[in-house]
Amino acid sequence: MLTLENIQAAKMKVAPYIYETPVVRLHGLDELLNCNVSIKAENMQKTNSFKLRGALNKLLSMPLEQLQQGVVAASSGNHGKGVAFAAKLLNIPATIVLPDSAPSIKVEGIRALGANVVQCKLAERHDITEKLSLEHGYAIIHPYDDYDIMAGQGTVGLEILEQFPQTSAIVIPIGGGGLISGVATAVKSLAPHIKIIGVEPAVVSRYADSLIAGERLLLKEQKSMADALLTLQPGERNFPIVQKLVDDIVRVDEASIESGMKTLLLAGKVMAEPSSAIGIGAALQGNLPITKNDHVCFLISGGNVGLNQLHNL
Amino acid sequence: MLTLENIQAAKMKVAPYIYETPVVRLHGLDELLNCNVSIKAENMQKTNSFKLRGALNKLLSMPLEQLQQGVVAASSGNHGKGVAFAAKLLNIPATIVLPDSAPSIKVEGIRALGANVVQCKLAERHDITEKLSLEHGYAIIHPYDDYDIMAGQGTVGLEILEQFPQTSAIVIPIGGGGLISGVATAVKSLAPHIKIIGVEPAVVSRYADSLIAGERLLLKEQKSMADALLTLQPGERNFPIVQKLVDDIVRVDEASIESGMKTLLLAGKVMAEPSSAIGIGAALQGNLPITKNDHVCFLISGGNVGLNQLHNL
Repeated sequence: MLTLENIQAAKMKVAPYIYETPVVRLHGLDELLNCNVSIKAENMQKTNSFKLRGALNKLLSMPLEQLQQGVVAASSGNHGKGVAFAAKLLNIPATIVLPDSAPSIKVEGIRALGANVVQCKLAERHDITEKLSLEHGYAIIHPYDDYDIMAGQGTVGLEILEQFPQTSAIVIPIGGGGLISGVATAVKSLAPHIKIIGVEPAVVSRYADSLIAGERLLLKEQKSMADALLTLQPGERNFPIVQKLVDDIVRVDEASIESGMKTLLLAGKVMAEPSSAIGIGAALQGNLPITKNDHVCFLISGGNVGLNQLHNL
Repeated sequence: MLTLENIQAAKMKVAPYIYETPVVRLHGLDELLNCNVSIKAENMQKTNSFKLRGALNKLLSMPLEQLQQGVVAASSGNHGKGVAFAAKLLNIPATIVLPDSAPSIKVEGIRALGANVVQCKLAERHDITEKLSLEHGYAIIHPYDDYDIMAGQGTVGLEILEQFPQTSAIVIPIGGGGLISGVATAVKSLAPHIKIIGVEPAVVSRYADSLIAGERLLLKEQKSMADALLTLQPGERNFPIVQKLVDDIVRVDEASIESGMKTLLLAGKVMAEPSSAIGIGAALQGNLPITKNDHVCFLISGGNVGLNQLHNL
């Protein structure tokens, strides 16, 4: 189960090894997004994404003898980088299974942390991870469907409440649902009036669709600029939490994801990866359930984007 | 004369029309720059540079009958954009004289505010400004050699002291010297222990050279990536203030200016123009007079940089 207490305990474990990233007020975006804009800048986190929090909490919660066998993780990149960082800290071997399509900045970042990288087709990454686990005895570090991972990600929520208590809505990118499960649990426990809004690519709207269906739908593989949000099915442990605690899920089209990244960079002067600027895209698209007076905190989940990706904007 | 009281009065005048830009702690740069890194993000200011502060204070201090004749300003771009914004606010005509080499994002930004743009060779901009003033009766709004301009820019210093009182050093880009004169006057009046360090392009080190010579040297025209810092001689009113209050001036080579911008963007996730990331470049170059324990506030003076300029990095 995931509780506020788990998340508070996770904070004790991970705080010494992560940055308390800033909440930054971006006045320059208020008019464009039609609300009072702040960001929680996890693009400025160590490893440049929030994923480090969950990975650290997971590894710091595992028995030593299991850790010493090594760990393996399937990832689009950011979770892998978090696991690689945590493994390096604990001096244990890590293997990260990435899709062939992962941006080179993510692949290189993981290798630079000393982890072994295996690349494969997107759809095969979980099978290959299991095979490696069986062959070598590696412990699988799941990117989202795990309570320790969710508790780690939830520490972002605790920080937002401390740094920016006047927030009235938090907008959170959704892939498998690890981040939003953690943040929603923390925030709704302590400040239930704050709206929690999930944003996902319209081409892989697994959460919006599954919530309507009332069950975890498995979608077909799609391409999206939001390379970190391509998970095809809500996590088993994440889905009921999202059902219970999340106020709204908004689908964001590809053009708006790109505009979100561009607007955050050119008007906001902050660089984030497309998957992380998707909330800004949702606001530009005009269908976020917020009003002009809302103090909206956009959770900018990561910043692993290379100059080569900027050149395509 | 420039006094703390002038700057405090300027703050009353300009505060309703500008953003209080954030001070952002950038942990991710600490190791690279070998100090505790924060930025004062004037790249996130309205018009995307601090220059708006001085322009507003100047125009709000002029008699109405003079304003109604219109204003003219020579600028590399950011001062012009500030003057154009202030003129629009007061509903008076403005003409901005820019060098042919000004980045298109600056030229377009000024036009978008409704000002008239005249372009000429860099060396001619002050002559043409005077000619336009004589012909049309426009009041000249000097970019730096003016106490009202300096008082406006000094409001950045008051904000840094309020937002980040534990700062031990402030690193400030220098062109003509308007910003550093204002900030040094505010900061040394209230917190004389805080080090004030100026940074300028090595190819046009008019302040470092003039301080050694003990007089305002006029340098030869040079090219630099730092297009906003090409002024060839310290301002007459600025020079004695810098002589008296600034602790150090550091020359920054072109390669370090570029690395500064790239590091701030890729490692810090913040976009600034080359002239504004020059302080980061100075720290990378390794000759800023700071130590590992210093809490350094890098004044990021502007963010008017286009995607086309990023493509050249």
